[in-house]
Amino acid sequence: MKQIEMRPIGLIHSPYSEKEETPIQGVFSPQGEGWVEVFPEYAEGLKDLEGFSHIFLLYAFDRAGAIQLVRPTFLDDLPHGLFASRHPARPNGIGLTIVELVRREGAILRVRGIDTLDNTPLLDIKPYIPRFDSFPHARAGWTEGKRLRAKPAGRE
Amino acid sequence: MKQIEMRPIGLIHSPYSEKEETPIQGVFSPQGEGWVEVFPEYAEGLKDLEGFSHIFLLYAFDRAGAIQLVRPTFLDDLPHGLFASRHPARPNGIGLTIVELVRREGAILRVRGIDTLDNTPLLDIKPYIPRFDSFPHARAGWTEGKRLRAKPAGRE
Repeated sequence: MKQIEMRPIGLIHSPYSEKEETPIQGVFSPQGEGWVEVFPEYAEGLKDLEGFSHIFLLYAFDRAGAIQLVRPTFLDDLPHGLFASRHPARPNGIGLTIVELVRREGAILRVRGIDTLDNTPLLDIKPYIPRFDSFPHARAGWTEGKRLRAKPAGRE
Repeated sequence: MKQIEMRPIGLIHSPYSEKEETPIQGVFSPQGEGWVEVFPEYAEGLKDLEGFSHIFLLYAFDRAGAIQLVRPTFLDDLPHGLFASRHPARPNGIGLTIVELVRREGAILRVRGIDTLDNTPLLDIKPYIPRFDSFPHARAGWTEGKRLRAKPAGRE
């Protein structure tokens, strides 16, 4: 089936330059502040984004390790299917995170709750719209009740 | 900046074969049932997905029209920035939808609340985890209070 080509539209800047430092998900480090730089040729597309308190960032996992379809995850030592986890090493390495949009300064977005590595290639931004996207009572499968923890050492 | 190549891992099947028929978002048609076919080489990665009631589907907008960075949207006749909307014609045509996972039958996922066209190329599946993904009080920007409506005729 035909290949699909993508090109970064910007960069995500964060306090994390090493994989071991990054939180498992942004909500685990609500104070993790970062900024998103949208390249000038796309800046116009940000109009009205500042009305939203939360946004989806879609980005490329550009430093992920080898893909294993079933594997231990950051949250659990038992193996789970890759598509039942948010692990970075995926067939199409698209990362998804929801961050709080603190403010927009032109083509720069100041965000809170970031969990990506510094200089991560940005692929897309979408507004978070609670009536489409919020399912507070969704069943959380194997992650239910898993305690937040530091990433296990050496777990790629 | 370097190009990123992606390849479909499956196909999304839905009742919608024409753009005009698809709902604006899946939550607008909770009864819209569909099925996701994951190609055999990736099937193992679905282990434990059935524990989740909701999943993210990331897919390619393979039939989107021309990109306009500021444009009227399906929900509003006023122009908004593309990144402040979920419009399909985007620099990197990645679609994001959250569906209810009714059941898994091997490499087939029966889902509800689908809003994609039939035979849409699937790029990734991620579990929806409410403590990471649910922000019921997020501010909905320009979409706040917009009434659900049929897609305006001819609005690509």
